[in-house]
Amino acid sequence: MIDEITALSSQFKTSDQFSLPDYRDVIIAGMGGSGIAGMIFSEIYGEVPARNISGYHIPKSADEETVFIGISYSGNTEETISCFREAERAGCKTYAITSGGMLSKLCKNTLLIPGGLQPRSSVGYLLTPLIRTFCSDRISDLEESSEVAAALDRDHSLAQDIAGKIVEAASFPVVMGYPPFASIAYRWQTQFNENAKMMAFSLVFPELDHNAIVGLGGSMPLDDFFFMHFGGSDQKISKRIGYTIELSGISSMEIPQSGSTDLGKAIHFLHFGDYLSYFTGLARKVDPREVNIIEKLKYQLSQSSP
Amino acid sequence: MIDEITALSSQFKTSDQFSLPDYRDVIIAGMGGSGIAGMIFSEIYGEVPARNISGYHIPKSADEETVFIGISYSGNTEETISCFREAERAGCKTYAITSGGMLSKLCKNTLLIPGGLQPRSSVGYLLTPLIRTFCSDRISDLEESSEVAAALDRDHSLAQDIAGKIVEAASFPVVMGYPPFASIAYRWQTQFNENAKMMAFSLVFPELDHNAIVGLGGSMPLDDFFFMHFGGSDQKISKRIGYTIELSGISSMEIPQSGSTDLGKAIHFLHFGDYLSYFTGLARKVDPREVNIIEKLKYQLSQSSP
Repeated sequence: MIDEITALSSQFKTSDQFSLPDYRDVIIAGMGGSGIAGMIFSEIYGEVPARNISGYHIPKSADEETVFIGISYSGNTEETISCFREAERAGCKTYAITSGGMLSKLCKNTLLIPGGLQPRSSVGYLLTPLIRTFCSDRISDLEESSEVAAALDRDHSLAQDIAGKIVEAASFPVVMGYPPFASIAYRWQTQFNENAKMMAFSLVFPELDHNAIVGLGGSMPLDDFFFMHFGGSDQKISKRIGYTIELSGISSMEIPQSGSTDLGKAIHFLHFGDYLSYFTGLARKVDPREVNIIEKLKYQLSQSSP
Repeated sequence: MIDEITALSSQFKTSDQFSLPDYRDVIIAGMGGSGIAGMIFSEIYGEVPARNISGYHIPKSADEETVFIGISYSGNTEETISCFREAERAGCKTYAITSGGMLSKLCKNTLLIPGGLQPRSSVGYLLTPLIRTFCSDRISDLEESSEVAAALDRDHSLAQDIAGKIVEAASFPVVMGYPPFASIAYRWQTQFNENAKMMAFSLVFPELDHNAIVGLGGSMPLDDFFFMHFGGSDQKISKRIGYTIELSGISSMEIPQSGSTDLGKAIHFLHFGDYLSYFTGLARKVDPREVNIIEKLKYQLSQSSP
């Protein structure tokens, strides 16, 4: 698994992209480790009118002026294939990013990426062609992303330290992000799930100040949770984080920021979470790579289909 | 608070709406109890090309062809006012739904709704004009919503029973929804926060089967959590729910569905969660209505502004 994690920095150096016709809007469909690429892309590059789908159905507003991009690392994700078929029926311009599988056979405009990884270890491969396709003036973002990932490959001792504290506390991680890194907080949640085999949760400022803060400051003990928040925000969010922690009385560990572009910062946080969840898994004596329960579920679902 | 909860069914009977010019896309901005209305609307009425914003900034793709709707019950939510100002600068066609405040002064096209409620108790007032404006052929959805809400007002004994079990178990609710009710699962999370003063979390099928299932089935005890899932799904999701529970070994309580339209079902689940979180608060001996910590935070933020 560690070799899959350190492979991230090189993934931003790929150069494939789609050549798109005119379009009105974009739908990006994908689940889990494949879906996160589209979420990160849409959150950071708001100049692209994109919506993300994690499920079986595309929005009914999709039509001939819609670009549909199906992302499935394996190419066999049933939800994404369902969305692809709906997009074809709606007359969308359809594209796919995958390492092969059924999706590569169904979709004429398929961008093939290297196989053999866990989907969650391919986020650079999945994200890079989106940025190259839609934001060709932002290639320097990709260069910085590669650099911040490589810097963490050289030194991830802080992530290892925090992993030890999480396991010592026997608590569930609660990750608090802020825009444009809401999708990264969610990525951490899912990496704790898959790499460390534990539940985890995510919240996002300023939204959490309208509801979750009441739960945080409530009378129920929160010893079950290990709170972390992303540092380096602008003054507005920074004040909120400070006051929220003070008023609710929780203790929260700050994760330092790195990078100068939004994508660079996002990839720094993302990769920090890769290492953190990996070392948390090791400290919990589980195999970070295996996700047998997902495979078992897929098998059961395939057996029960009519 | 109980009178605010029982007021929901009448809120779907209001008849105000906007008269819109042609547009390409829609942005709906709102936080917390005000933001949820836009989330529910966008998830259920996918024929409207709408995106939701919970934060200070609108997407950079917004322009003269964009309809912007700011929703703030108080009219003084700083994030939503920030989005409104950005929308004006971007040349969007701007609209507001509010009970007054700064937003009603700033926005020429304001739809005023009755004041005096907690924002989270006004979801019918906030949702109804969206449906009347964009989906005038779906007025019967509003009629059904009013009916399912009134039915729960007459009998909410199941919600009261489950509330007792949650408090007895001294556990944190984890609500598992499925599309098009992901926003309703999130609403439950926030209602437990505000009404019961406790942390709560939400997950959504099928996405959770790509990551959270590994945490659910992991080796860490899950006694801290009280799992609930929305019932009445189609066969595909229903199988997933069954297998997920079986493989992960969790126990999850099924919340029964009611209604025939997607909106009717959504409002049934939503209102069930209103009662459930209310009775959980009472059983925990807290005042469901007060959210003093949010008011304190707003005060501190206003004092520290330059």
